[in-house]
Amino acid sequence: MKCLIIAAGKGSRLQQRGPSKPLIPLLGIPLIERVIRTALDAGVDEIFVVTGYQGEQIRDFLEGLAARLAIRITPLVNDEWEKDNGLSVLTARDYLHDPFLLLMADHLFDPRLGHALTTHALTDGEIALGIDLDTRNPLVDMEDVTRIKVEDGKIRTIGKGLVDFNGFDTGVFLCSPAIFKALAQSKDTVGDATLSGAVRILAAKGCVSAVPTRGFWVDVDDPKAFNKAEAALLDHLRDKSNDGPVSRYLNRPISIRVSRYLAQYDVTPNQISLFSFLCSMIAAGLFALGGYLALLLGGVLAQFASVIDGCDGEVARLKYQSSDFGGWFDAVLDRYADAFLLFGLTWHVLLTEPNGWILFIGVMAIIGSFMLSYTADKYDNLMRERFELRGMAMIRMGRDVRVLLIFIGAVMNLVLPVLVAIVVVMNIETIRRMKVASDA
Amino acid sequence: MKCLIIAAGKGSRLQQRGPSKPLIPLLGIPLIERVIRTALDAGVDEIFVVTGYQGEQIRDFLEGLAARLAIRITPLVNDEWEKDNGLSVLTARDYLHDPFLLLMADHLFDPRLGHALTTHALTDGEIALGIDLDTRNPLVDMEDVTRIKVEDGKIRTIGKGLVDFNGFDTGVFLCSPAIFKALAQSKDTVGDATLSGAVRILAAKGCVSAVPTRGFWVDVDDPKAFNKAEAALLDHLRDKSNDGPVSRYLNRPISIRVSRYLAQYDVTPNQISLFSFLCSMIAAGLFALGGYLALLLGGVLAQFASVIDGCDGEVARLKYQSSDFGGWFDAVLDRYADAFLLFGLTWHVLLTEPNGWILFIGVMAIIGSFMLSYTADKYDNLMRERFELRGMAMIRMGRDVRVLLIFIGAVMNLVLPVLVAIVVVMNIETIRRMKVASDA
Repeated sequence: MKCLIIAAGKGSRLQQRGPSKPLIPLLGIPLIERVIRTALDAGVDEIFVVTGYQGEQIRDFLEGLAARLAIRITPLVNDEWEKDNGLSVLTARDYLHDPFLLLMADHLFDPRLGHALTTHALTDGEIALGIDLDTRNPLVDMEDVTRIKVEDGKIRTIGKGLVDFNGFDTGVFLCSPAIFKALAQSKDTVGDATLSGAVRILAAKGCVSAVPTRGFWVDVDDPKAFNKAEAALLDHLRDKSNDGPVSRYLNRPISIRVSRYLAQYDVTPNQISLFSFLCSMIAAGLFALGGYLALLLGGVLAQFASVIDGCDGEVARLKYQSSDFGGWFDAVLDRYADAFLLFGLTWHVLLTEPNGWILFIGVMAIIGSFMLSYTADKYDNLMRERFELRGMAMIRMGRDVRVLLIFIGAVMNLVLPVLVAIVVVMNIETIRRMKVASDA
Repeated sequence: MKCLIIAAGKGSRLQQRGPSKPLIPLLGIPLIERVIRTALDAGVDEIFVVTGYQGEQIRDFLEGLAARLAIRITPLVNDEWEKDNGLSVLTARDYLHDPFLLLMADHLFDPRLGHALTTHALTDGEIALGIDLDTRNPLVDMEDVTRIKVEDGKIRTIGKGLVDFNGFDTGVFLCSPAIFKALAQSKDTVGDATLSGAVRILAAKGCVSAVPTRGFWVDVDDPKAFNKAEAALLDHLRDKSNDGPVSRYLNRPISIRVSRYLAQYDVTPNQISLFSFLCSMIAAGLFALGGYLALLLGGVLAQFASVIDGCDGEVARLKYQSSDFGGWFDAVLDRYADAFLLFGLTWHVLLTEPNGWILFIGVMAIIGSFMLSYTADKYDNLMRERFELRGMAMIRMGRDVRVLLIFIGAVMNLVLPVLVAIVVVMNIETIRRMKVASDA
C-alpha cells in the first residue's frame, strides 16, 4: 500500500523549536520520521510526501531517511502551501490510483490505528477516517480540533465549529482516489479547498466510514501538544509485561525521566548498557575495598546502575533502535554485573571474618543468582501460559529485587544477612521452578 | 490415514527372546510398539492390527498402549495365521476403503520411509512398496529377504528366489483396496495367498510404484537381525549435531553402551540426570576434602558423571521419552554441577594456599563457566545460520570439554593451572561471542 504524507504547512506555533515543523525532533526523532515509521509498521511500502514551506530542507532529510531505512520516498512540491491543505493532497493526484493511507506530518498516532485502516475494506468511491470517540480526551486541544458527527459507523458531517458532535478527526485517513474528485468539487463549487471540505461532500453521500482509534493520537501543533505527545510516548514505556515490582514502582518512574533526557542525544542503547555495567563493576570494587563508607557508596552506585539499566531498552523503544542483540548484550552484561556485585559483597565480609562458611555463602549467592536468570525464560513462558488462563498478574523475582536487596544491605551495613537471604530465596526459587516445570 | 499392521505369525526363530514376537522388547520397547510409533510419526491416526498366534496377549498389550498414547487401535483376529500372510491382510478388507499404510509388526524402518509413503500419491488401482536399492545392505539377510526387480520406478516382479533383482522388499506398503482384489485373485487362480503373490499380480499390470527407502530398515526375524536392529538404533544416537568434540569421540561411544544396558530397565531419563548430578556433587565434595587421593577419586567420578550425563538423552530417544522438560531439567542440574565442581576445586587449592587470588580465580572460573552456558543458545543459533551457509562444521566449547579439563587437572594434580585455563578460555570465549553477535 502507498501512503501520502502532508508536510507542506508552516506550523508557526512551534517555530521556536526548529525552522521546519516536520523536522522538529520529539524525543530525539523528527515528527515526520515518527509518522513514516508508524506508516511502515502499518504495512505501507511506498511513501509520497508533499512539501511546501522549507521544502528543500525536508526533501534533504527524506533522501537521507529513505537511504537509512531502505525504502522509497518520493517528495512532491506544492507551491501553494499557504492556501488550503486540500491543494497539497491534489498534488499527488497522478501518483495514487489505489486505496492509500493519508497522514499529516504532525499527527502522531498509535500503530494500531494504522493497522485498523490499512486492513479496512473500502467500497467503491468511499474513504475511511480514523476518529476519536472520547470527547473528553485530555490530549485533544478543544479550541483547534476538527469535530465530527458519527452515525451508524458513517461520518455525517465534519468541521471545527460543530456544536452537535460526538468525536474528533484524527487526521489519519484511508483514501480512495474519490478524495481527489471530492476535493476538486469542493474547491470549484463552494471555493473550499480544505480536506474537511472534501470529506463533507463525501460524508453527505454516506461515503466516509468511521474507524475508531485505539490508543493515543496527538496533533502536534503547539508547545502544549508537543509536551502531551512526549508524555504519551513516555507513558508507553511503562507497560513492559515482564517488569518486576521494584522495576515497576521504583526504577521505571526514574529511568523514564532519564530516558527522556538521553533520547535527545546521540547515545545508543548499547552504550547505556555498558555504562550501567561499568557502574556496577565500580560498585563491586567499592564493596571489596572494605569499610562502611565504601560499602555505602557501592550500594548507592549499584542501585543507580540498576535504574540506568532500564534506560537502554527505553531509549531503544523511543528511538526505534530495539534489536535482538541489544537485549541479549544487556542480559549478558547484567549476569557479569550480578556476579561481581555479590563477589564484592562476599569479599567485604571476608575481610573482617575470613572463614569458609562466608565463602560458601557468597559462592552460593552467585550460583543462586545465575540459576534464577538461567531458568527465567523457560519458567516465564510456562507461567505466562498459565496465568493468562487464570487472569492473574505475574510476579517476577528478578534482577530489580536482587539489586535492591544489595542496596539495602549495603546502606544498613547488613551484608551477611542479605547474602544469606539471596542464597535462600534464589536457590529455593530455582528448585521451586524445576518442581513447577516438572508438574506442567 | 489408517494403518494396518500384520502381527499374526509365530516368529519361531526368536522364540527364546519371548513368547510372542511382536511383544519382544528391543532396547526396552516391544517391536510392535516401535512400528506403531513410527506409523504415528508418519501421520497415521487410526491403527488396525491383525493378530493370530498368541493373539490374546498381543490384544491386551495393544489395549494398554492405545490408552497410554491416546490413540485408536482396533485388533482383528486371523484364525488361519499359520497359513499364507495375505489371509491376515484380507481380514481387514471391510475396514479399509481408502489408501492405507500396510506394515509388518517385525519390520522396523526409518520414519522417513513412512513419511515418503504417506505423502505418495496413488493412482487408481495402484499400490506403492517401500524398497531398498542397496543390494549390499549389511542389515539384510540374503537368505530370507524378498527380492524385487524395479524398472522406471515400477516393480516388475517380486519373489524370494529371484535371480535377476535390483532391490529388496522392505515390507512397508502404501496400499489401496486394490490389494484385496489382487490377494483374492492370487489365492483363487494360483493358490498363492501370500502378499508377494498379490504384489506379483499388480506388478504385472504396472500397478506397483517403488518408493526407495531412506535410512535403515530391518526385518527382525532371528537373533542376528535382532542384534543388527539394536545396533542400527544405537548408531542413530551418534548424530547429535551439537555434540562437542569430547562428547563425540570420548563420552558418546561409552555412554551409548551404557544406554543400551539401561534401556532394558525401568529407569527414566530424569532419574539418570539426577544420578549423574549426584555423582558430580560427590566429586565436588571429594575435591573439597583435600589431599591427592580424594582429588583423584573426585576427578574420575566427575568424568564418569559427564559420560553418564549423555545417557539421559540417549535413553529418552531410544524409548520415546524425550521432553522439553527433560532437556531443561538436565541443563539446570548441569549448571549446578559445573559450579560445585569448580567450587570444590577452588576449595581444594585454598586449603593449602589460602589467599585472595586463588579465591578470585575460582570465582572467575565459576562465572566464566556460567556465562558460556548462558550465551550458548543465542550464539549457537547464530553460528548455525552462518556455518550452514559456509558448509563448515561447528565446534562447540561446552561442558564436555570443561569436565575433561577438570578430570585431567585432578589426575595430574594440576588444579590451579586448570582453574586458570578455565577462567581464561571461558571468559574470553564469552567476550568473543558478544563481539561476533554484535557484528552479525
